[in-house]
Amino acid sequence: MSEIAAPTGLLDRAIRRITSVWREMASGVGREDDDSIEGQMRACLAGRGGEVSARNRAAKLAETYLRLDTEGRHQFLRTLASFDADQDAVETALAELQAANDATQRAHAQMRLRRALEPRRIRLLTQFTTIPDGIKFLVDLRATVLDMMANDPELVALDADLRGLLANWFDVGFLELRRIDWSSPATLLEKLVGYEAVHEIRSWRDLKNRLDSDRRCYAFFHPRMPDEPLIFVEVALVEGIVGNVQRLLDEKAPLQDPHTADTAIFYSISNCHRGLSGISFGNFLIKRVVGLLSDEFRNLKTFATLSPVPGFRRWLDARMAEGLPGFFSEDEAAAIRAAAPGEHPTPEAALAAILAERGWYRNANLVRAVEAPMLRLCARYLLQESRGKRALDPVAHFHLTNGARLERINILGDRSEKGARESATVMVNYLYDPAKIEEYHEAYVGEGRRHASSAVRRLLRS
Amino acid sequence: MSEIAAPTGLLDRAIRRITSVWREMASGVGREDDDSIEGQMRACLAGRGGEVSARNRAAKLAETYLRLDTEGRHQFLRTLASFDADQDAVETALAELQAANDATQRAHAQMRLRRALEPRRIRLLTQFTTIPDGIKFLVDLRATVLDMMANDPELVALDADLRGLLANWFDVGFLELRRIDWSSPATLLEKLVGYEAVHEIRSWRDLKNRLDSDRRCYAFFHPRMPDEPLIFVEVALVEGIVGNVQRLLDEKAPLQDPHTADTAIFYSISNCHRGLSGISFGNFLIKRVVGLLSDEFRNLKTFATLSPVPGFRRWLDARMAEGLPGFFSEDEAAAIRAAAPGEHPTPEAALAAILAERGWYRNANLVRAVEAPMLRLCARYLLQESRGKRALDPVAHFHLTNGARLERINILGDRSEKGARESATVMVNYLYDPAKIEEYHEAYVGEGRRHASSAVRRLLRS
Amino acid sequence: MSEIAAPTGLLDRAIRRITSVWREMASGVGREDDDSIEGQMRACLAGRGGEVSARNRAAKLAETYLRLDTEGRHQFLRTLASFDADQDAVETALAELQAANDATQRAHAQMRLRRALEPRRIRLLTQFTTIPDGIKFLVDLRATVLDMMANDPELVALDADLRGLLANWFDVGFLELRRIDWSSPATLLEKLVGYEAVHEIRSWRDLKNRLDSDRRCYAFFHPRMPDEPLIFVEVALVEGIVGNVQRLLDEKAPLQDPHTADTAIFYSISNCHRGLSGISFGNFLIKRVVGLLSDEFRNLKTFATLSPVPGFRRWLDARMAEGLPGFFSEDEAAAIRAAAPGEHPTPEAALAAILAERGWYRNANLVRAVEAPMLRLCARYLLQESRGKRALDPVAHFHLTNGARLERINILGDRSEKGARESATVMVNYLYDPAKIEEYHEAYVGEGRRHASSAVRRLLRS
Amino acid sequence: MSEIAAPTGLLDRAIRRITSVWREMASGVGREDDDSIEGQMRACLAGRGGEVSARNRAAKLAETYLRLDTEGRHQFLRTLASFDADQDAVETALAELQAANDATQRAHAQMRLRRALEPRRIRLLTQFTTIPDGIKFLVDLRATVLDMMANDPELVALDADLRGLLANWFDVGFLELRRIDWSSPATLLEKLVGYEAVHEIRSWRDLKNRLDSDRRCYAFFHPRMPDEPLIFVEVALVEGIVGNVQRLLDEKAPLQDPHTADTAIFYSISNCHRGLSGISFGNFLIKRVVGLLSDEFRNLKTFATLSPVPGFRRWLDARMAEGLPGFFSEDEAAAIRAAAPGEHPTPEAALAAILAERGWYRNANLVRAVEAPMLRLCARYLLQESRGKRALDPVAHFHLTNGARLERINILGDRSEKGARESATVMVNYLYDPAKIEEYHEAYVGEGRRHASSAVRRLLRS
Repeated sequence: MSEIAAPTGLLDRAIRRITSVWREMASGVGREDDDSIEGQMRACLAGRGGEVSARNRAAKLAETYLRLDTEGRHQFLRTLASFDADQDAVETALAELQAANDATQRAHAQMRLRRALEPRRIRLLTQFTTIPDGIKFLVDLRATVLDMMANDPELVALDADLRGLLANWFDVGFLELRRIDWSSPATLLEKLVGYEAVHEIRSWRDLKNRLDSDRRCYAFFHPRMPDEPLIFVEVALVEGIVGNVQRLLDEKAPLQDPHTADTAIFYSISNCHRGLSGISFGNFLIKRVVGLLSDEFRNLKTFATLSPVPGFRRWLDARMAEGLPGFFSEDEAAAIRAAAPGEHPTPEAALAAILAERGWYRNANLVRAVEAPMLRLCARYLLQESRGKRALDPVAHFHLTNGARLERINILGDRSEKGARESATVMVNYLYDPAKIEEYHEAYVGEGRRHASSAVRRLLRS
Repeated sequence: MSEIAAPTGLLDRAIRRITSVWREMASGVGREDDDSIEGQMRACLAGRGGEVSARNRAAKLAETYLRLDTEGRHQFLRTLASFDADQDAVETALAELQAANDATQRAHAQMRLRRALEPRRIRLLTQFTTIPDGIKFLVDLRATVLDMMANDPELVALDADLRGLLANWFDVGFLELRRIDWSSPATLLEKLVGYEAVHEIRSWRDLKNRLDSDRRCYAFFHPRMPDEPLIFVEVALVEGIVGNVQRLLDEKAPLQDPHTADTAIFYSISNCHRGLSGISFGNFLIKRVVGLLSDEFRNLKTFATLSPVPGFRRWLDARMAEGLPGFFSEDEAAAIRAAAPGEHPTPEAALAAILAERGWYRNANLVRAVEAPMLRLCARYLLQESRGKRALDPVAHFHLTNGARLERINILGDRSEKGARESATVMVNYLYDPAKIEEYHEAYVGEGRRHASSAVRRLLRS
Repeated sequence: MSEIAAPTGLLDRAIRRITSVWREMASGVGREDDDSIEGQMRACLAGRGGEVSARNRAAKLAETYLRLDTEGRHQFLRTLASFDADQDAVETALAELQAANDATQRAHAQMRLRRALEPRRIRLLTQFTTIPDGIKFLVDLRATVLDMMANDPELVALDADLRGLLANWFDVGFLELRRIDWSSPATLLEKLVGYEAVHEIRSWRDLKNRLDSDRRCYAFFHPRMPDEPLIFVEVALVEGIVGNVQRLLDEKAPLQDPHTADTAIFYSISNCHRGLSGISFGNFLIKRVVGLLSDEFRNLKTFATLSPVPGFRRWLDARMAEGLPGFFSEDEAAAIRAAAPGEHPTPEAALAAILAERGWYRNANLVRAVEAPMLRLCARYLLQESRGKRALDPVAHFHLTNGARLERINILGDRSEKGARESATVMVNYLYDPAKIEEYHEAYVGEGRRHASSAVRRLLRS
Repeated sequence: MSEIAAPTGLLDRAIRRITSVWREMASGVGREDDDSIEGQMRACLAGRGGEVSARNRAAKLAETYLRLDTEGRHQFLRTLASFDADQDAVETALAELQAANDATQRAHAQMRLRRALEPRRIRLLTQFTTIPDGIKFLVDLRATVLDMMANDPELVALDADLRGLLANWFDVGFLELRRIDWSSPATLLEKLVGYEAVHEIRSWRDLKNRLDSDRRCYAFFHPRMPDEPLIFVEVALVEGIVGNVQRLLDEKAPLQDPHTADTAIFYSISNCHRGLSGISFGNFLIKRVVGLLSDEFRNLKTFATLSPVPGFRRWLDARMAEGLPGFFSEDEAAAIRAAAPGEHPTPEAALAAILAERGWYRNANLVRAVEAPMLRLCARYLLQESRGKRALDPVAHFHLTNGARLERINILGDRSEKGARESATVMVNYLYDPAKIEEYHEAYVGEGRRHASSAVRRLLRS
């Protein structure tokens, strides 16, 4: 997703768009300026020649960046990161604060201190906003920072600043919700194909099926990136909760009349830009879409997701390796060992062997043997395993934070190769009950309590 | 312009729009919450129930505000202003900063201190962005703060915060330039009539003349206030620089073929929202429009304003009252005293008497007597009088900052009652020469040097 | 409305648009052609150089026409009218028809005869369709034909052909219904002001009142004349049937909440183009608008017009002059004679004298004296007077043909100068009852029966 | 393409759209009407209940038709065709014409006769225009008439009437030219794939290549069928005339900068609706697009097609079978016989054998042997073979009529299976020279003269 990987054509186009503006704006930029990157940045901050000139310099700086290779960009970002707060100004303001005698003086001193503490790179980054595609430039820049930050702590503060700026500009209040359907521009549909992160779109036929009359697709857009979806959700209008994603993706399935549907299944939510990670739209998107669908289809009673359990298989494998004494009933243990290929000393080892078998989920005998313990294991994974105060599974954490409850666990919910590898074919439904959202959110965020249907809770007890 | 003055109908509509959203978003807001204004604000900051609920509370808070009378709003704003930085957090962060041992620790401590110093009211204000018309709400709120702040210093910091937020959201990069013409919606045209601040639009006929084929009108808009112009400029395409605004406003004047015009006269620039004062768009607007016009009309060579000199008359009266020994030549002094009604001991007194005469500018004798000294006086006023480092005249300061030069001074440039009262009928042309803008800007901002044409400079010397 | 009267500016613009296309289409038109008007027309019909060239010739012909003065245009139209059917071809086809031996031969011969009978000017007129504004050109041409035809029977057949072509192109199926409101382009609103034929729009303020939230305005447009309304209707949403138009036009009247309104009053319908007279849209417009309003406002129960009675006063004066023995009761006769200014031998003369009094309708005494007999007279005028098989009053004929019934007669319904002069201040309501429209239409068109409410019918009997 | 073949879903949708309007329009249609198809048609013509009711009946009639199977539709169309001119009225009008005494009487009588001769089915067909999709309904109806007419001469006159009506409504003046590109709605792009008749679009990737920045695609649309292209053309912007279509369809070919291109190649023109056959848009489309491209790309000098020669192979096979004594030079004859598989008595037989060889065009030896004679044969086929006064090849006839000249003949121009089968791999370029279009058109249409480049003419002489 980062610009580095952008095909040359795109990159050239971006540079051309940026530089054309730079040229079109009257004025000779920095004829005598220091042309090093640090010199350019200094000139941007100095702001000679008025606002317009300053922004022209920002355009030139963006162009410089886009022309660099990976190593060059890394250096660029480090230089950028080095434009920290002006330490002299900070010292002065701190001294002033200590010398303050009354509330008013103190208030003023604090305001000045706050300003002094603002890293100068923030002013620099802000200057990119007026160049065309400037916002997109910053989003892509952050994607690169995130990539490089893993091995370079010097970039952490730069990331925090970028995130703060982007969070401000991408405030949900500025976003526009648009429906996407088969009459949307092909350019946009093509992007959906690229951005879909949950269930790969295999063809235009597959895509058309997902945009048919019994489906809905909505995305958030930002006015400064009008052709770029930020996040999108795919919804199927069906009768009753669906536990199997292949059923939804089946292009030959008959069309449902959406006006008789009683259930909306949110079966895919994809964030489109790594550069916006940590800035959350999903919660709002789901709730806005629930509102829109309720208005359009009066028969809808149930709003639920069909979600993967991406960490389940790894967690399961680890549990099987270390053993789970007392977890399996005797009957279960016998059945699993009987069904497993080869001889295994423990039911844990037998279960692991079954899951290691290629295509085990197409063998009814194997499925029968593992189904009951796997449902229990998944309930435990989702409701009892934690990472700090959060649910260990990231998807569960997202929906629980939004105020949903865990409604159903479905074995064989996703029989794709990826589904087997990550989730051991399990998919789950999270239910959004408008009347409970606030209460459940509060319970999870406040006390860490995770709500679930009685059926799921029963799995834990057995 | 402030909401207080809004006709009841508008207010009701605003409340209805805000509350409908508030209701539509699922969830019971603050059933047990403290319903006082301060209680509501506290609840907003506490953020129970997730982001959606928090924003619902903001909507309710906005509704509460809109229902208040002037005094109620004043109290509301004072309460809001009292949500300052959390002093405990500030103290802690300061201590941490002092304890920092190395650069990394220090950097982290500074980041935390900066966050601690952020007044809590900023988070509160930000929550208004997602309610419909929330941005307009904040713009209007600031207009009220500005009004009340004159007599209440407690609101100064609140104004600074609002200005900071608005400056961020109304960054020129987010604005959209649109042309306005006679095929624009009547709702929008009606707003132009209301917002025109320089030369009042007297009728739809007058407006139509200003939008004719030899005119251009451009405005900046913000995506979150799509029906509200923020600033607009009116341009006439003519042959040669025009020094008289009545000529431009004459509805019966023959149409100029815009493709043969060699000069674009910017004869009116109006800011539309007091709540955005101090956030400058004018500079960008002029330069964008110069660019657009250059592209459309290849014959255009000259871009100049026709501008009022709003402080000239007051300054002139003061100078005449205190006397300007040696300023008038003997011939001038004699001519002025001869032309003035009554007997006057000094040419200064005689000049003052002439200008005090109602409609003096319709009397050719009087005009002839005062013309030469008045042009000199105006050149002096514009080029030599200062307020701090700025030109005393605010319009001159604006255009000089933008990099324009003072090109021509025109007596009888504006014969309207307002023109006589404020500018003694003088209008001036500021010239925007794309090749010089940067240099002139730098000269004025850096060294306080004001550029002018040789003709105007000669006035100073004589 | 005819092009002759068009201000030079408009005319020039039309010529410029037409000729620019003519030039842009490659090819040398008729270098060797006869340049006389008849020669140009011949060349158009000959069609040398392919379709594109032929249409270029049509553009040149249109330009020739637009440059002519009134007399020149008259000659042009006469020349055009002379391009009748080819008489040789007609004779040949007639002979062929007579020689036909069987049904198939006869069918073919009839088809050929029909083609031979088609006047050649029809092919010529059709060629104008591809030039820009060509349709508008033909509509305006017909307006001129209609004007000139009154004194020149040679143009009658040309008018019939034009009407046939226009009826074809302006088939209701091709029209687009659009709502017009205060956010419509000022260019369009300005046209409404010009085209409003029933109750003059006095100012933009008046117009804005008619487009307020308790009003609706709809117009038909044609895709080839996208900026030109063809016909428009103004509707007020009110409680109960309104009998007085000044009440509707009162700009200071309080706003009605349209969602609580139970009645839609169609108080003005204006055709915009004389060149389309005889091609009826009004019937469809009313019924489409009834449908739209029913969908939007569920509380609406009653759809009625508030209509003038434009021939009433003239008819009334004639009746009074010839006398109406036995019409007035004794009490009525006495009251009228007592109220009338001066002495009068008969109640008829006294009534005429009252109506001749300037502003009689502002004098409560006079109104009281005439009210009852005038209501009876108006009922008689509308329901019993005929012109051939049609109602004498043209507005009554229009609504009765559409299937409406006469619901109410209101004295003092229109106190404007025009209302008094034409309708003796009377306005009436025609009621559109969707369940009865077909039946009433059939009764009127088939048997000449005019439906009316029982209240109105009672007036006839008394 | 005909409605009969329409998938049930589409048909149902069409019926639903039509009937919903039928229901929404107030009024009870034909409660007592004869429900047979002929009865319904009679009722439509009788027009009881006013225009709105009449059109409701048309909607019901359309619904009746759409629900019929193939045989039922055939009967329906025969019934419709039987609504001929009213013979009594024709007789009366003929008698009146014979009795006419002077020019005026004769003119009136002719007008009445013309009206009497108009088949009543025309009025019936016209009534379909106001139902939604009514125009599309008639276009599809005509497609069916054309299919059935081949075996049923009773439908010929109905086809002529339909064609006349459609020609009127689809007059080029009413059409809208739109550019289609990759940001067009997917629904529209999907239609292109279906309608492309010259070079099949194999995938979305192929389509995207055809809409890339060095390509242009334009289509005509009608306001009443806004989502349906009527005809579209695909253009490649290249350097120099291209003789090979695979080069243009190669998705991996590098992008040409369109601003440096000197040649526009029109490589595919497809009509989209069989129901509009005989109503020509292609000529106008090409000329409008030539105009648009000239404006956008100043470097374009040459406008040429790359066209198939669809009848060439069949004609060639027939010539080879009957022998062409003296056509081949001795060297050619020897080379062909040497290259051909097997022994052949004549060069004609040998050439036929080569072309019968599967994939002969991939064998350089074979190509070398046949190239020269085949170019000569193709020149002869295109320039000398006739069908009546027209060029035998339909594509040649189309472009020659438009005023193009035959510029170049390219062997191996289309190596697809279809290209080999129909055109023996030959493709040709027709050149549109704006300065010559009219002259060439006139020469071809008037005298049957076919213009060609000197290179092609040389082929004929050798």
